[in-house]
Amino acid sequence: MASGKLSRAEALACPGCRHACHVMLYCDTKTLLFGSIPIRHIILMQMRFDGLLGFPGGFVNPSEESLEAGLTRELSEELGVALSILEEDHVDSCYAPASSSSSPRLITHFYAKKMEEEQIREVERAAVTTATDHGQEVLGMVRVPLYAMEGGGGLAPFLSHSFVGNARFQLTDTLLHLHLVAPEELREAGACSLKIQAHATEELRAALASAEVKSKLL
Amino acid sequence: MASGKLSRAEALACPGCRHACHVMLYCDTKTLLFGSIPIRHIILMQMRFDGLLGFPGGFVNPSEESLEAGLTRELSEELGVALSILEEDHVDSCYAPASSSSSPRLITHFYAKKMEEEQIREVERAAVTTATDHGQEVLGMVRVPLYAMEGGGGLAPFLSHSFVGNARFQLTDTLLHLHLVAPEELREAGACSLKIQAHATEELRAALASAEVKSKLL
Repeated sequence: MASGKLSRAEALACPGCRHACHVMLYCDTKTLLFGSIPIRHIILMQMRFDGLLGFPGGFVNPSEESLEAGLTRELSEELGVALSILEEDHVDSCYAPASSSSSPRLITHFYAKKMEEEQIREVERAAVTTATDHGQEVLGMVRVPLYAMEGGGGLAPFLSHSFVGNARFQLTDTLLHLHLVAPEELREAGACSLKIQAHATEELRAALASAEVKSKLL
Repeated sequence: MASGKLSRAEALACPGCRHACHVMLYCDTKTLLFGSIPIRHIILMQMRFDGLLGFPGGFVNPSEESLEAGLTRELSEELGVALSILEEDHVDSCYAPASSSSSPRLITHFYAKKMEEEQIREVERAAVTTATDHGQEVLGMVRVPLYAMEGGGGLAPFLSHSFVGNARFQLTDTLLHLHLVAPEELREAGACSLKIQAHATEELRAALASAEVKSKLL
């Protein structure tokens, strides 16, 4: 992480720090996209209330509950399922970029939990049926495409979206850490992703110019 | 649309053109976000197999079926529900930007269908339970936030994502056309969205630099 990693114990010893815990739920899959492209792994992220992509999770107060108990509680609200997150699922902890000098520092703790494919599907179903946060904190669950299609579709466009906090770091670092994508795959996706972002910026300017003209005619 | 609008009849008369139909399913809602921010409308979009955001729908061959019948068929595959889209739901048709001089021109037809809130929730549930395209063409359904939160969350970050084809135009134009957002709201969200994109580009570069260093250590 760009903003400085620290151990779980160091993080918990930080006086006055705020803590947020998030998790990457994932599974292996033998499913082929369109019968030919290996999907390899299903990874869950979510569209958040603020319009950004992120991982399930939220704030935890370690003086009231353990990091993992707090994360488990957040998941039950956001996903509508009882998933037990354990200390062994911890990937890393790091300081989030400071938002202002006066607010207490935020430490983000990241976890990864491997599940069975049917459990991942159950999480997707529960997120829109039993989860209390559906339509509130969570606007929808999405899977992360790891493949690279011939026309450029897959991981590259996905990485070009806007993510909350250090969620993009957490995704790319954890994909490498767990060997879910190879370093050269990530490098190629990243280079392509920057071009897609540049194109998106041009397109957004054009859409706004068009809306500007239209609003004068309304 | 930036690429030239045409009437439904003109579009159908185009010799050798390919046709794609997409729909914005939406409803009114009285629900408040966090008990205080009016959500006003629920609008459904989806994360596509190629990692881009878009509206449900797909290619239709007008020599085999009507545009609306084709769209209805696509929706049953992607959303797992039988929704009848009618000619009266048509919003506009336009040429898509030419991808290469040799391929036949693509005309995109856009529809908007107002539903009841409970029907929208049923679409969300069916999309992850009965839809055959779940995990294939569709990686997840997401709601579009129209509000502007104090910290900047809402429509602005959402517009900063990467969209397929002219889906971003279709969204912003239709939001104005149906008076779901006011022109000044869209203008403010757009200006903020450009800043978020610039930030996302910096962040992506940093994530890739970090992954580059890490991959050399692996």
